[in-house]
Formats: sequence, structure tokens, C-alpha cells
Amino acid sequence: MQKTLEYETEEQVMFFDTDIGGVVHNIAYLRMIETCRTLLAEQLGFNLKGMTEEKVFPVVVRTEIDYKKPATLGDKLAIRGVVDEVSKTSFWCEFTVTDVQMPERIFIKCRQRLAIVRMPEGRPMRIPPHIFERFQ
Amino acid sequence: MQKTLEYETEEQVMFFDTDIGGVVHNIAYLRMIETCRTLLAEQLGFNLKGMTEEKVFPVVVRTEIDYKKPATLGDKLAIRGVVDEVSKTSFWCEFTVTDVQMPERIFIKCRQRLAIVRMPEGRPMRIPPHIFERFQ
Amino acid sequence: MQKTLEYETEEQVMFFDTDIGGVVHNIAYLRMIETCRTLLAEQLGFNLKGMTEEKVFPVVVRTEIDYKKPATLGDKLAIRGVVDEVSKTSFWCEFTVTDVQMPERIFIKCRQRLAIVRMPEGRPMRIPPHIFERFQ
Amino acid sequence: MQKTLEYETEEQVMFFDTDIGGVVHNIAYLRMIETCRTLLAEQLGFNLKGMTEEKVFPVVVRTEIDYKKPATLGDKLAIRGVVDEVSKTSFWCEFTVTDVQMPERIFIKCRQRLAIVRMPEGRPMRIPPHIFERFQ
Repeated sequence: MQKTLEYETEEQVMFFDTDIGGVVHNIAYLRMIETCRTLLAEQLGFNLKGMTEEKVFPVVVRTEIDYKKPATLGDKLAIRGVVDEVSKTSFWCEFTVTDVQMPERIFIKCRQRLAIVRMPEGRPMRIPPHIFERFQ
Repeated sequence: MQKTLEYETEEQVMFFDTDIGGVVHNIAYLRMIETCRTLLAEQLGFNLKGMTEEKVFPVVVRTEIDYKKPATLGDKLAIRGVVDEVSKTSFWCEFTVTDVQMPERIFIKCRQRLAIVRMPEGRPMRIPPHIFERFQ
Repeated sequence: MQKTLEYETEEQVMFFDTDIGGVVHNIAYLRMIETCRTLLAEQLGFNLKGMTEEKVFPVVVRTEIDYKKPATLGDKLAIRGVVDEVSKTSFWCEFTVTDVQMPERIFIKCRQRLAIVRMPEGRPMRIPPHIFERFQ
Repeated sequence: MQKTLEYETEEQVMFFDTDIGGVVHNIAYLRMIETCRTLLAEQLGFNLKGMTEEKVFPVVVRTEIDYKKPATLGDKLAIRGVVDEVSKTSFWCEFTVTDVQMPERIFIKCRQRLAIVRMPEGRPMRIPPHIFERFQ
């Protein structure tokens, strides 16, 4: 059960992730973090197919991201996400992007607050009880 | 009226448009072309707000794109789109991306076929008569 | 001179900015903010062409972004950036994304800390004196 | 050895891949195709780390892409790339994007011509002999 509160994905840096500075562009990490976050949320019960039908999605309401070191083309990155604070209407996830082979090599630290929202109106909702319970 | 069959936009190349090769990434041009195409379509009567309500969109069914020369950071690009062939269910647009200051400097040639589709089912529809007439 | 410490850009929300939730995707705003930031930096003396030759770029080292309200397809957005804190090695910019027609309608608040870095090594440098002076 | 002339990757459709139409945005497939193509090229001897040092890259000079069916959020896609024509200065790759579970469900057909180019000047070069030989 503990397992459902964290998730790890891997990505290799592609050309589209880099810019003329020769390193990964700052926005590209947020795409990688979204993939990790979405699969983490799926484990918590936010099923991708179900969300689409009900139009109820966990949406990012705040992002804080620190760029520690630049990664570059061909680097293999591990993106690790953990749920670390939960209230009735929102939760925080923490993400770390490291080198797959050298976990002490940290590229990115990121925190995101997610709320449960009915789209496209943007109406906030309570975290469903069967999901909220998993955080206790 | 002729004016509604073509449209021109301008973009300056930003960091997110480039990659580690030091030039504009191939995918970035398609974003620029989409902006030009959407504003061209709006002039033809495909209003962005209206489309959202009716869930009827012009969608790309084929793209052909030739990369002639590489543009780079800070370049100012002109994207020119023209509607050039129309049938009852689809139309072709042709795009050229050039240097704003030197129109003979061609970076990109692109053709796209668009169909009118009801989303998310992907059901093809006829081009609305009031739009079809403008092509005559 | 005051004028060089702020900059405003406008963008209309395109299909590529939105997602299946029916509103602008959270990452798309960061691309819009980058355009504003880059043009603001250019006014401060960080010329896009010059940067490429010297391989010295202002890079984002931290982003904080709050998603206040969802914008959607066709919305016209004003992105306003202001430099608001400067030290010898970094500076903060603050961005607000609002509705062009209704400035009280705030979609996004964002702060970014920028450092001056030689790429691709990622070596931090002092803010050049002729730029630093403009902040006094 | 035959194995080096084709490559298959898998992707699950994320929010950032979709748009307000409720399906995958046309540009997102090109990012997926780039990942497949880059890993295919790596197998042919175009090592990502080596390319960066030598500034010699395989670059796309033409793309043809047909959008057959719309994929949507959560779909699991298989992207299969094959090298199918080789000359001294360029080669063609063919890509098919299908449903991982139902290979007969074809979303995308795409062909790309790649040339070997020294960046950022964009100077075309011959395909290196040790790579050219693998195509015979």
C-alpha cells in the first residue's frame, strides 16, 4: 500500500528536450514530471480513462521547481514522485530528477500542489473518500 | 474577399524553439504553422470560440513539410498560409516560412490537408456551405 | 529607462496550448512566460544573437507559478514581466498573465530567479556591469 | 543485424499530448516519432553522446505524415520505425503508430527523410561508411 504513494519513471534526454544552450530546456522537465505525476495519480485511483468520462481531473494549482544541474542529450533520467501532504481538497507531490546511474546527481527538485477539479468550468471538488483514505 | 484565403503571422525564434544542434527544432515550425493556420481558418469562418461549443474542428489529416534551411535563435520568421485546393470534405493549405527581412530566404515549405471533423468521435463532416462558397 | 525593467507580450490561446480538460495546459503558460522573459532580457542588454556567440545565457534556476483561473481556446492573454530583485549573480522576474480585455481577470502569477551562466558547462557568472547598473 | 534496421518504442498518451478536441494533438505524434527515430539512429551508430561532441547530426529534411485515426488520453501506443531507402547522403525512415494491444488499429503513418548535417552551419555530409555498409 505504501507503494501507491510513490512512483518512478525513466526518460532519456532527446533532441526536443534540449535547446541551443546545449542542455535540457527548463520546460522539458515539467513534461517528464507530468508523466510521473499522472502515473502516480493513476495508482492512487485517478484512472486516465475514467477521468475523461467524468471530466474530473487532478490539476496543478502551484509548481515550485529548482534547477540544480543541467542534464544533456542522451542522459538517462530517473523521475521520482512522492505524495507528501494531503488535505480534503488538495495534495502536494514532491519530485526529484536524478541520473539513473548516479542517484546522488540531482538535476531537479520540484513540488506541486494538485486540486481535484471538474473541467472545463474549473470547479474545485473534494478528494474522493476512497482515495483520501489511502493517504491515512 | 480574396484576403480571406491567405494569412501571415510573424514569430521570433525563442530558446524553446531551438535544440542542441544550435538551430530551430523541426517540430517547432509546426507549432508556428498551426498558429498561422488557425488564424487563417478563423478568417474563413471557423471561429475559435464557436468551434469549442459545437465540437466541430478543422483537423489536419496530412502534413508534408520540407526543411530547406535552418533558422536560429532570434531570427524573425514570417509564416504565410494560403488555401489552395478545396473539395466538399477537405481543403489544402500551403505554408512558407521565410526571413521577415529577406523573403527570398525560405526556411520551410509545408502543405497540410484539413478535414472538418466532429470531436472526440472523429466523425468527418462536409465543409459548411457558407464557408465552401468563399472558396469559389 | 524604467521602461527597460518591464515588458508585456500578448498571445492568443491556440489548440496546442490546450488539453483534453478543455482549458490551457499548465506547461503552455511557461512557454508564453519565456517569450516575455526573453524579450524583457533583450531590453536589459541580453541580446539573443550576442548570447549565442558568447554562449552566456540568463537561465532559470527557480520557478514558482500559481494557477489562479483556467484560460481556454481563443482567449487573448497579456503576459507582463517585471524585474523585481537583483543581486550580483542573479535576479528575480515576476509575471502576471491576465485577460487582454479584462486585466482584473488573472490567470497566472509566476516568479522566476535567473542566473547568468556559461553553457554548456553551466558555470555561473556575475551579471555584466553595464546591465547591473540599469537596475540601480 | 537485421534488427538494427528497425526499432519499436511505446508511449502512453498523457494530458500534454491531447488538446481541447479530446484527442491527441497532431504535433504530439512527431515527438513520439522523434524518440523512436533517435533510438533507431543510435542502433545504426549515431550515438547521442558522440553526436554532441562532433556536432554532426542526422536531421529531418522532409516529413510526410497521415493522421488515420485519433488516439486519446491513456491509450498505449506502439511506434515502429524502419529504415527503408538509403543513398550516399540521406535515408528514409517509415513509422507506424498503432494501439499496443490492437496492432491493426493504425493511428499514424509517417515517412521522414534524414540527411547527415554538420551543425549549426547546416552543411550536408556523406553518411559515414561504417553506417552506410549496414544498409547493404
